[in-house]
Amino acid sequence: MENEKSFAQIMDDLVSDCEYVLGKYLPDPQNMPEGEQYTSTIAEAMRYSVMAGGKRLRPLLIGRICQMYGGRRELAEPFMAAIEMIHTYSLVHDDLPAMDDDDYRRGRKTTHIVFGEGMAVLAGDALLNYAYETAAAAFSAAKTPEETARVVRALAILMRNAGIFGMIGGQCADLEAENNQEQVTGETLEYIHSHKTACLIDSGFVIGAVLAGAPEEDIQRLHRIAHDTGVAFQIQDDILDVTGDSAELGKPVGSDEEEGKVTYVTLYGLEKASADVLALSERALEEFDSLSAGDGFLRQLILKLVSRRK
Amino acid sequence: MENEKSFAQIMDDLVSDCEYVLGKYLPDPQNMPEGEQYTSTIAEAMRYSVMAGGKRLRPLLIGRICQMYGGRRELAEPFMAAIEMIHTYSLVHDDLPAMDDDDYRRGRKTTHIVFGEGMAVLAGDALLNYAYETAAAAFSAAKTPEETARVVRALAILMRNAGIFGMIGGQCADLEAENNQEQVTGETLEYIHSHKTACLIDSGFVIGAVLAGAPEEDIQRLHRIAHDTGVAFQIQDDILDVTGDSAELGKPVGSDEEEGKVTYVTLYGLEKASADVLALSERALEEFDSLSAGDGFLRQLILKLVSRRK
Repeated sequence: MENEKSFAQIMDDLVSDCEYVLGKYLPDPQNMPEGEQYTSTIAEAMRYSVMAGGKRLRPLLIGRICQMYGGRRELAEPFMAAIEMIHTYSLVHDDLPAMDDDDYRRGRKTTHIVFGEGMAVLAGDALLNYAYETAAAAFSAAKTPEETARVVRALAILMRNAGIFGMIGGQCADLEAENNQEQVTGETLEYIHSHKTACLIDSGFVIGAVLAGAPEEDIQRLHRIAHDTGVAFQIQDDILDVTGDSAELGKPVGSDEEEGKVTYVTLYGLEKASADVLALSERALEEFDSLSAGDGFLRQLILKLVSRRK
Repeated sequence: MENEKSFAQIMDDLVSDCEYVLGKYLPDPQNMPEGEQYTSTIAEAMRYSVMAGGKRLRPLLIGRICQMYGGRRELAEPFMAAIEMIHTYSLVHDDLPAMDDDDYRRGRKTTHIVFGEGMAVLAGDALLNYAYETAAAAFSAAKTPEETARVVRALAILMRNAGIFGMIGGQCADLEAENNQEQVTGETLEYIHSHKTACLIDSGFVIGAVLAGAPEEDIQRLHRIAHDTGVAFQIQDDILDVTGDSAELGKPVGSDEEEGKVTYVTLYGLEKASADVLALSERALEEFDSLSAGDGFLRQLILKLVSRRK
């Protein structure tokens, strides 16, 4: 029984499940379709990038919330794979020399270090494109016009949250902020946090509910929960850069300050930052408790996300 | 009356129409939605890249073929905008220092020269993502389940032709071929031509027909016409690099040979290359004449594409 399992055990099971779904949907470089053997390198680069580990938070949310509303797993799976491909492509491009120029991620060499810069650009493009090819496969799992309409809506949410009015918008504002630190205000930071981070979290919270046909009121609540959780998560990131333990975090602390970066903490101080994380997470949990369906694991997950130490 | 107009006049009108559609669907940096002003730079970069001119061949084909089958313009427009965004993003990323490293395209500075490399990576990503956001907007124009099903199919074609089993696959094979010229065979070249070039042309020829509900037999014919036209177009490119006029082409001739690049001409010689272009274009025109609908302008366009001198 799941309710006898610890939070960590359920989490492990869900992460394994996400890895299974990803393995199933990603092209297999060893087994490419007839005539497509010339693309096995990029299929390798895609798999290398996606299978580099990670929390699998976004696909996990889609699958679990679809289940919470009694939705059909067949509709959710393509979206679970798709959102992790989108998340991964953004990391592959972010790591490029033209962007953050990172040689390592989660202790492994980044995609452009292993496959070369040109191939990393293409592998990121390929992941973004394949994400939508994969999500659109959900149409063939839809059995009624009502389900087709849900897939149309879920696809629109997935796309918007990833695009210029979503994650890419946040990355663009972040890139511009880096070169104009003196102009960064609280509003800029709220924009960056709510777009660069919270938008993909929003897809995680909302898409499973949409696919399952959850009540409209719940869908609106899930949007707000995602925003509050995503922004709190990001402020916590800024806090941990000051107060965290290098060993636990797996990266040096104090790097933001060293780079002269304007963060939530440098703008408002540690005390207000911590208070805001608390307020945002309380509001998220309150909304969560008002949903027409419930899930103890997810409630705990929201709490862990915002109070995490690494 | 259109049939009194010259080919060039109709072409001009259709290109203007494509520019109008693109202007309508691209985000307007001067008029961003409420709260999205932080993304105006990327909206500018997107518009700069797309509005750099060009033949507008792919959107023109979608619109014109949809019309040829009596389809609804409302369904075609989002796809016209989308395919040109996809074509453009591929050029923006191709021009990056990590890829072809081009500072100029069509006489204008490339996107990364004007906006910086990081922003060019993001602008390419944004165009690809926005292409699908735009195409998916066609769902709201669909009036019947039958039309919805056509949009689903058109979207799948658009996505596959752009992805690793389409254009990106061709780019990947091309990138690998560059570093292993001695291993390039006729088969490699056929793969690169049919994927890197012909796949987006395929979307151009087929999507309008699918959206208009053209007979299945015609759709299969259009796939073949697109393949033959796309491959012939690319062989003609290789021929022009040897026999062309620098002034007409707007780029130096003989660059392939200078770079020691294996092309259709270096592999098979000029004579066979020219004969193959002729055979491919004859086959394409024969198929075109067997369609259940006809369009004199399109017939002439196919002919011009493969016999072009620039």
